[in-house]
Amino acid sequence: MKDFNLDLHLVTDRGLSCGRLLLEIVRAAVAGGISVVQLREKDCSTRDFLDLGRAVAAELKGRSVPLLINDRVDIALAIGADGVHLGQSDMPYPMARMLLGPAALIGLSVESVADALAAESLDVAYLGISPVYSTATKTDLKEPLGLAGIRDIRAISRHRLVAIGGIHAGNTRDILDAGAHGVAVVSAICSAGDPGQAAREIRRQISAAREGKRSHSGAATAPE
Amino acid sequence: MKDFNLDLHLVTDRGLSCGRLLLEIVRAAVAGGISVVQLREKDCSTRDFLDLGRAVAAELKGRSVPLLINDRVDIALAIGADGVHLGQSDMPYPMARMLLGPAALIGLSVESVADALAAESLDVAYLGISPVYSTATKTDLKEPLGLAGIRDIRAISRHRLVAIGGIHAGNTRDILDAGAHGVAVVSAICSAGDPGQAAREIRRQISAAREGKRSHSGAATAPE
Repeated sequence: MKDFNLDLHLVTDRGLSCGRLLLEIVRAAVAGGISVVQLREKDCSTRDFLDLGRAVAAELKGRSVPLLINDRVDIALAIGADGVHLGQSDMPYPMARMLLGPAALIGLSVESVADALAAESLDVAYLGISPVYSTATKTDLKEPLGLAGIRDIRAISRHRLVAIGGIHAGNTRDILDAGAHGVAVVSAICSAGDPGQAAREIRRQISAAREGKRSHSGAATAPE
Repeated sequence: MKDFNLDLHLVTDRGLSCGRLLLEIVRAAVAGGISVVQLREKDCSTRDFLDLGRAVAAELKGRSVPLLINDRVDIALAIGADGVHLGQSDMPYPMARMLLGPAALIGLSVESVADALAAESLDVAYLGISPVYSTATKTDLKEPLGLAGIRDIRAISRHRLVAIGGIHAGNTRDILDAGAHGVAVVSAICSAGDPGQAAREIRRQISAAREGKRSHSGAATAPE
């Protein structure tokens, strides 16, 4: 499984139309500094999902921004995506790994410490901690885990952690300070008037959080 | 691609609950003489679809009734189903064949003579002619093709043809007389008070249609 930068995931939403608008958002967000795209489409036909996936893959070609497909292993296989993101109601990890092979990036959502403990034996690329805050984007989730949830999971997990749910530039620093290695956002970029600028601002907050940690740990602060 | 009997497909419907009820219907329908099960679930989570698929596969184990998965190539791969049924908005045939391998049964819905002509070069197990009659089961389809549609496609296609849409025991004979090799039903079995009896009655009509053809062609009538 190849290494990759998981600082800032753009997760697309079913509320976004399949087509040009999404491609424009992805293009702007990549320019703004996102490091992963997770394509999440729950209402598309398989053929539309394939077409959209191919278009996004073409957009990302030659950039070091992996494309992950939410849930649908068949779509990931068909378009040669870098991997998948699996929720707790999606295909179980071992089956997805078997179908996708050892090189695929597989991210896994965890909604509790128990979920995170169950993932200790898995070769996942990261755990998605979901949801950190309440959000209108997904309404079928459990109680928000909050910063305490990040700390609890960080304490027991060997995996890199990506927080999702209600995250924006204003709370990114708190989330990294609590122990997350990266953040995933939906509306903070997709619904922003200027998605590129929104991505840049979250990036800045991530850098600030890292800078703050370096300062606190007494290391020399490196210029940005 | 192995040979199989495509006389009578049971197609499950999203309106049926995922779980025990569906298994009971499948069990009764198999006892009643269906020859193929196509599992169609549009609203399940992937994990529920997998669980249901495994349960149906276990029910069919050892019987010569193939299990096809509607649309979802990943589900078919994960549970080792016999194949998939693809609609015109699902994964294109060549990609599905590549992922599933040469032994998989792949059925393809066609909604016009043009669709059927486009399928001439494909190694499909059958073409599903859809819809023959109007039906409340699927509301997103084109105008019904009717018996004339079956005749038109039969005239130009090298493939075996399975008709679907508004089919029940009362019109099965007309459909086979028009040139279909088999029929696929949803509500005629799934919604029947006695699914096994409903399957038997459609089977009887299929036999009667075959018998009628043998009689017309002057061959000796074989006892049933």
